[in-house]
Amino acid sequence: MREPRHISSRAHALVKTLHRLATEPAASRRLGQVWLEGDHLARAFLARGGRAALAVVGASAWLQPGPRELALQAAEIVVIDDALLPEISSLESPAPIGFLIDLPSSGQQPLPGVATVVLDRLQDPGNVGTILRSAAALGVRQVLAMKGSAALWSPKVLRAGMGAHFALHLVEALAPDDLDALAVPLVATSSHAAAAIDQLALPAPCAWVFGHEGQGVGPELMARCALTVTIPQPGGEESLNVAAATAICLYESARQSRR
Amino acid sequence: MREPRHISSRAHALVKTLHRLATEPAASRRLGQVWLEGDHLARAFLARGGRAALAVVGASAWLQPGPRELALQAAEIVVIDDALLPEISSLESPAPIGFLIDLPSSGQQPLPGVATVVLDRLQDPGNVGTILRSAAALGVRQVLAMKGSAALWSPKVLRAGMGAHFALHLVEALAPDDLDALAVPLVATSSHAAAAIDQLALPAPCAWVFGHEGQGVGPELMARCALTVTIPQPGGEESLNVAAATAICLYESARQSRR
Repeated sequence: MREPRHISSRAHALVKTLHRLATEPAASRRLGQVWLEGDHLARAFLARGGRAALAVVGASAWLQPGPRELALQAAEIVVIDDALLPEISSLESPAPIGFLIDLPSSGQQPLPGVATVVLDRLQDPGNVGTILRSAAALGVRQVLAMKGSAALWSPKVLRAGMGAHFALHLVEALAPDDLDALAVPLVATSSHAAAAIDQLALPAPCAWVFGHEGQGVGPELMARCALTVTIPQPGGEESLNVAAATAICLYESARQSRR
Repeated sequence: MREPRHISSRAHALVKTLHRLATEPAASRRLGQVWLEGDHLARAFLARGGRAALAVVGASAWLQPGPRELALQAAEIVVIDDALLPEISSLESPAPIGFLIDLPSSGQQPLPGVATVVLDRLQDPGNVGTILRSAAALGVRQVLAMKGSAALWSPKVLRAGMGAHFALHLVEALAPDDLDALAVPLVATSSHAAAAIDQLALPAPCAWVFGHEGQGVGPELMARCALTVTIPQPGGEESLNVAAATAICLYESARQSRR
């Protein structure tokens, strides 16, 4: 068995890097690395064929068979003092294990011709993570985030995504022109649209575009949409949360494709 | 114009009450009152015919026509020092106005024979608020929360609900036997169910049951369900967030009803 390194100082460069990754939403993009905190994310990464460069495990967890076995899946292992775990976490109860991996989406380009979700400046990490989860579950192949959207690989988005990140092709910080290469029609929801989502044949594959929680899809992207549809809302003036609207749109696309 | 009272001490009983309501999730149920912080919730309450007993407005906002006009909709007005606003808020940027109202769901019983959502021990306030919003938008009449669910009138649920609370009949802290009076079939999602949600005729009205984020619907409620259905997930092992699943189920019920 390979010998783990031991770190007991909060001044260690690795602890400082993990601290940044755990607490700064944009650190993953800046540093080109992602801190997958906790058993669930680490296992989801492995289940999708990911190979972890480094496992970081608390000293107590390292003595337990479950975490130890998981840590041994990584190329290298660092055991840190339990007292340092809160340093490398944004959780109230820090997880005793995690993987440090290279940013999977680094340098990736949008894929043409596949079922896609486009996020136009979405702000709430919980919404973004929930949307990634819906996309992965409902058969979407890639999610593209426009410039100004919440960072896809931030700790909060990772947590809400529950591992969906690893089932998707993800590209961030895109400009509108970058969407020209998609070669699938863009579709958005709009309360002004003439057609209800279930009363026309949705193009398949298509790229569903979802917008900022307050402002919706911006005019530049809206102008690029081949189609806009409404989600009928018999409740009247109430409106849907954007992650709820996304689930409905992706479900309807999948439902039509099954018929 | 009626004369507002002025409060400048954080030791004032009203400030203490508002502090509890703003910071303790269960305070609304205990005190029988709800603090609707911010312009959006206050206006949503009025738009649904609500009558506010008390408006609380910061001293600076009281000098502005918009907040002043809103405050004047309440029976009584209290102007408080701006420095006290953080005391009565759980937000980083406290709102300069809000209404104190009586707990609308106090003493209410479930309504029989109407489209219903049942929450079985859901924990996350963001999920609960999003579900209330979807329910109101998609034509559900009432939402029932079983004992052990997040408090429906907590500040976080109110914020995520964006005013949906006032469009729904809400009852909390129910026991399984309380559902006997509903007189509509209970329906739940289950990955073990034989039928896909869009391949059978959903009963209408029905009561959709959604469960705890980790454990799902408990066995006692599952045994009461007349029907279980799956949401087809072509993405394989990925799973949906419960608020996303709720949006899909309520959309599909509404879609079938329109046909």
